[in-house]
Amino acid sequence: MATYFSRRNLDFLLYEVFHATELTKYPYFEAHDRETFDMVLDSATHIADTLMYPYYRDVDRNQPELKAGKVTVHPKIKEFLTAVGDAGLIGASFPFEQGGQQLPELIGSCMGFIKMAANNGMMYIGLTSGAANLITTFGSENLISTYVPHLLSGKWQGTMALTEPQAGSSLSDITTSAEPLENGSYLIKGQKVFISAGDHDAVDNVVHLMLARIKGAPKGTKGISLFVVPKSRLTDDGTFVDNDVASTGIYHKLGQRGTPAMHLTMGEEDNCYGWLVGEPNRGLNYMFQMMNEARIGVGMTGAAIASAAYYASLEYAKERPQSRRLNEKNLLDSPQTMIINHPDVKRMLLFQKAVVEGSLSLLMECARLSDLVHVTEGEEKENYELLLDLLTPVAKTFPTEMGVRAVSEGLQVLGGYGFTEDFPLEQMYRDIRITPIYEGTTGIQSQDLLGRKMTIKNGKAPRLLFAEIAKTLEEAQTYDELKPYAERLRKETGRIQEVTASLLPFAMQGNIERFLMDATLYMEMFGIVTVAWQWLKQGIAAKKAQLTLGDTEDAFYESKLHTMKFYFHYEVPKTKGLATRLLDTEVLTLETGKEVIL
Amino acid sequence: MATYFSRRNLDFLLYEVFHATELTKYPYFEAHDRETFDMVLDSATHIADTLMYPYYRDVDRNQPELKAGKVTVHPKIKEFLTAVGDAGLIGASFPFEQGGQQLPELIGSCMGFIKMAANNGMMYIGLTSGAANLITTFGSENLISTYVPHLLSGKWQGTMALTEPQAGSSLSDITTSAEPLENGSYLIKGQKVFISAGDHDAVDNVVHLMLARIKGAPKGTKGISLFVVPKSRLTDDGTFVDNDVASTGIYHKLGQRGTPAMHLTMGEEDNCYGWLVGEPNRGLNYMFQMMNEARIGVGMTGAAIASAAYYASLEYAKERPQSRRLNEKNLLDSPQTMIINHPDVKRMLLFQKAVVEGSLSLLMECARLSDLVHVTEGEEKENYELLLDLLTPVAKTFPTEMGVRAVSEGLQVLGGYGFTEDFPLEQMYRDIRITPIYEGTTGIQSQDLLGRKMTIKNGKAPRLLFAEIAKTLEEAQTYDELKPYAERLRKETGRIQEVTASLLPFAMQGNIERFLMDATLYMEMFGIVTVAWQWLKQGIAAKKAQLTLGDTEDAFYESKLHTMKFYFHYEVPKTKGLATRLLDTEVLTLETGKEVIL
Repeated sequence: MATYFSRRNLDFLLYEVFHATELTKYPYFEAHDRETFDMVLDSATHIADTLMYPYYRDVDRNQPELKAGKVTVHPKIKEFLTAVGDAGLIGASFPFEQGGQQLPELIGSCMGFIKMAANNGMMYIGLTSGAANLITTFGSENLISTYVPHLLSGKWQGTMALTEPQAGSSLSDITTSAEPLENGSYLIKGQKVFISAGDHDAVDNVVHLMLARIKGAPKGTKGISLFVVPKSRLTDDGTFVDNDVASTGIYHKLGQRGTPAMHLTMGEEDNCYGWLVGEPNRGLNYMFQMMNEARIGVGMTGAAIASAAYYASLEYAKERPQSRRLNEKNLLDSPQTMIINHPDVKRMLLFQKAVVEGSLSLLMECARLSDLVHVTEGEEKENYELLLDLLTPVAKTFPTEMGVRAVSEGLQVLGGYGFTEDFPLEQMYRDIRITPIYEGTTGIQSQDLLGRKMTIKNGKAPRLLFAEIAKTLEEAQTYDELKPYAERLRKETGRIQEVTASLLPFAMQGNIERFLMDATLYMEMFGIVTVAWQWLKQGIAAKKAQLTLGDTEDAFYESKLHTMKFYFHYEVPKTKGLATRLLDTEVLTLETGKEVIL
Repeated sequence: MATYFSRRNLDFLLYEVFHATELTKYPYFEAHDRETFDMVLDSATHIADTLMYPYYRDVDRNQPELKAGKVTVHPKIKEFLTAVGDAGLIGASFPFEQGGQQLPELIGSCMGFIKMAANNGMMYIGLTSGAANLITTFGSENLISTYVPHLLSGKWQGTMALTEPQAGSSLSDITTSAEPLENGSYLIKGQKVFISAGDHDAVDNVVHLMLARIKGAPKGTKGISLFVVPKSRLTDDGTFVDNDVASTGIYHKLGQRGTPAMHLTMGEEDNCYGWLVGEPNRGLNYMFQMMNEARIGVGMTGAAIASAAYYASLEYAKERPQSRRLNEKNLLDSPQTMIINHPDVKRMLLFQKAVVEGSLSLLMECARLSDLVHVTEGEEKENYELLLDLLTPVAKTFPTEMGVRAVSEGLQVLGGYGFTEDFPLEQMYRDIRITPIYEGTTGIQSQDLLGRKMTIKNGKAPRLLFAEIAKTLEEAQTYDELKPYAERLRKETGRIQEVTASLLPFAMQGNIERFLMDATLYMEMFGIVTVAWQWLKQGIAAKKAQLTLGDTEDAFYESKLHTMKFYFHYEVPKTKGLATRLLDTEVLTLETGKEVIL
């Protein structure tokens, strides 16, 4: 079987970079140790190997269809959902009392990585666990007991139902309405679009975590409430009846075809009931919990698809003979060399590896922070929270935007064959393209980073980040080989500070449009530097291992250091051009009186 | 009908930047004037509007199939080929005596642009006219009279048959064999892969311009000859018989599904005849004529798809309301604004426009050079030839690599809708991805640029280019608004010279691998600067028009100047990072004794 991820690399990140077992010192995680961590990763790998990876192509070629109001998905989906439910993987990070395994997110995120690398078209369970988590955190006891066990068993599907046709990314404009009834529930009416796994026949019920406005609520985001709106609702006599959530459309998509994206219409027959989660008008706040999880999940999907693409390209490059080495072009009698030996091909492969392993490291950093938020209190907790909030849009964006490029380079490695359906690269190229769009486009993430996360609490979040980076820089000083890279990273953080300082005055003047005009380029620069920090952390862990093991020839650690260097020499220089643009005062994308006709 | 290209922009480039009518001063083109130019462009537009653009989606969804050795294509293809044949568009740039219209390539390239923007899945006729041109230039009278009229009428299909499964980009390793027969023809045996339009039922015959080795020929590229190998061959009694060219496979592809890509097997029954074109063992030299044309044609396809994507995104962005302006976020009662007013969306649209119009300008520059090569002699001709040779790999690469990114940004403008089959962006995203691969990958083009074109005749070609750029810089001095951009371009050409000078010593030492290690990054830098030159030329033409017309408010010219500025402020700074890497001495992609395991 071809490889789609490296367990060795996951273990390196888990135990040598992020010291996963240290989390078990906290009472909440004390039931665990490396053995239990390894066990769940083995279990996830087994399911990925047997029920996901072999069907990667098949779920794409047999996409969901909507006929007479019913959505049919690939028959393997049901088998898969049953297996992950039975193995306890949907609720792996839920508390014991909710039927979970109380595992750290750090481990959960690795499971997500493995599964999405195996077959990102089967992206059902992240939505289910996110929905269950939202109910568990903010819902009533009654909602929890009615929904959560069925969701965690894989028998019911969870969704996040935010987007509406007229609103798109602008949640303040959603109009789905909720009218309070005497029995405490609400009558729901409206439409939602692009609802992933929004309806299908592999589960007995679909539970939508849906944003809607209670009649008379304030305009904008402050009048949005969160509801549980099931496809089938439980009646007082314990039976289920149809809840008037109609599948009125299905999107045929470029990729991720294994999972349906639905257009849903609620209350066409005035018979759609919803149950309020938490308090009225606080829905968007609650939803942000699921959205932040989902953003990191999408980042992970980007890294995972890029991982599968990397190993597919690597395998091809090691086995495909073509041409001779550039210094031996005229030796026509010698056999052709494998294309991995051509510098341009090796460059593309190193780029893929640098993106995959750098992204994964950043995402695991976020997962670890989320665990620390969970088990700490007071200022410590607040600091972890701020840092996580700052890194979340970056962890959504870098792995997806750079993942798209990495998969494209992977396709290029295969030349004409990469463009054909004989190899999986073309599908990966299609699949990954949604990741910089859903759960908030790159533009939205970038405005969030520069417009909110850099400025809240007077810039405390970036100060915390730079303090973390400073710790890494100090540790790197121990190793001569790493010193120049530490110095480079130090300069790069200075560059971010310089650019930020040049933009903040626009925010202070209230000219938000000017402030955020090039937020996407700011994000690109910020992401490159953040991942450079992750690479230096990996470099330190690799040097440490080499010294401990006394074996400087270990190929894994050598390759880590080599890829770190590649990242610093090939990717980091891009910040120069970005900073040049960001410091440039010429305004070209704002209205300026003189209308520019495009 | 939605727009897929701008005729106004074509006219601007043709008559205000490249002064197309000046070509009519040469005797070869004297039969033409602006009226005849406009007539053929109108004719091409009419065919594109009626027979190509309306079937863009349809030819993709009903792709060619191979059944029982027969290839069926979309029924509209035959109608289209008949129409372009009847309108004389296949042979538009052929001499009158060959049945052509003796039109400049400059006009021909615009026709190609229009057609590929309308429907790049119908990419049949570029191959046919390329094949006919090769026969006309190097073939015998007999070959010309037998094949060329049928090709130009659209009744027969031409192909270029180079690639073999075991050789890929390495043409020196092709093994298709040709055994001389007593009657002057050759017995052909071998396999070819990825042959575009290599077999189909919309024509009566397919004529392959095929590379093969005559038995006993030298190894490598010096033993390759060029043959005409038809699907059906003409016998002495004037009838056609099957020529034993079997369609043994069809590729199912990510995009460009309207045109079949074939796996062909010649001589399975020892009954495949070929006719030598020109002299033995000079085949690759001849084929380079068709390859160079095809490279520019592929660049044009990249620019054309990016053009169609730009207008599709632009239309969406002007009509899609979403959210409020960033400075008016809290005005919830005000209507939503059109997304084109969001700076990030405008930035993406300007990027698309800058890539499309910059690429098109570079490609038309090449077409004009090709016309000048045709009508001049002696040193003048040689200089035009050198300049065209230098620019060809750039004109293949910039429009395709940047075109991929531009289409991706276009898809991003549509958000989730861009990922669905309800809009054409997803198809454009698939279609354009082949363009940096076929007719020589970006890696191959980059080695050609740095390894050959920069060094032949002691670097005469780049000296000629820099002299051309210097003329543009001087002209720009006339306009205050352009002076800073001229200064910037001057610095950028200096940067290219600095980087080149730092790399040439490796070539002199014979260390070609080190010399060409990062050729692809060199190409990226070179392309950015070359297109900056094209933008400055357009800026000059726009300023000139504003002064002549006395109307500085003309929206077209304002938009030209604005887009030029956008290109200089957003794209040109990328050369800083590229130059940093290219001047960096750390070697990371060559074998260094210590094997790096990927």
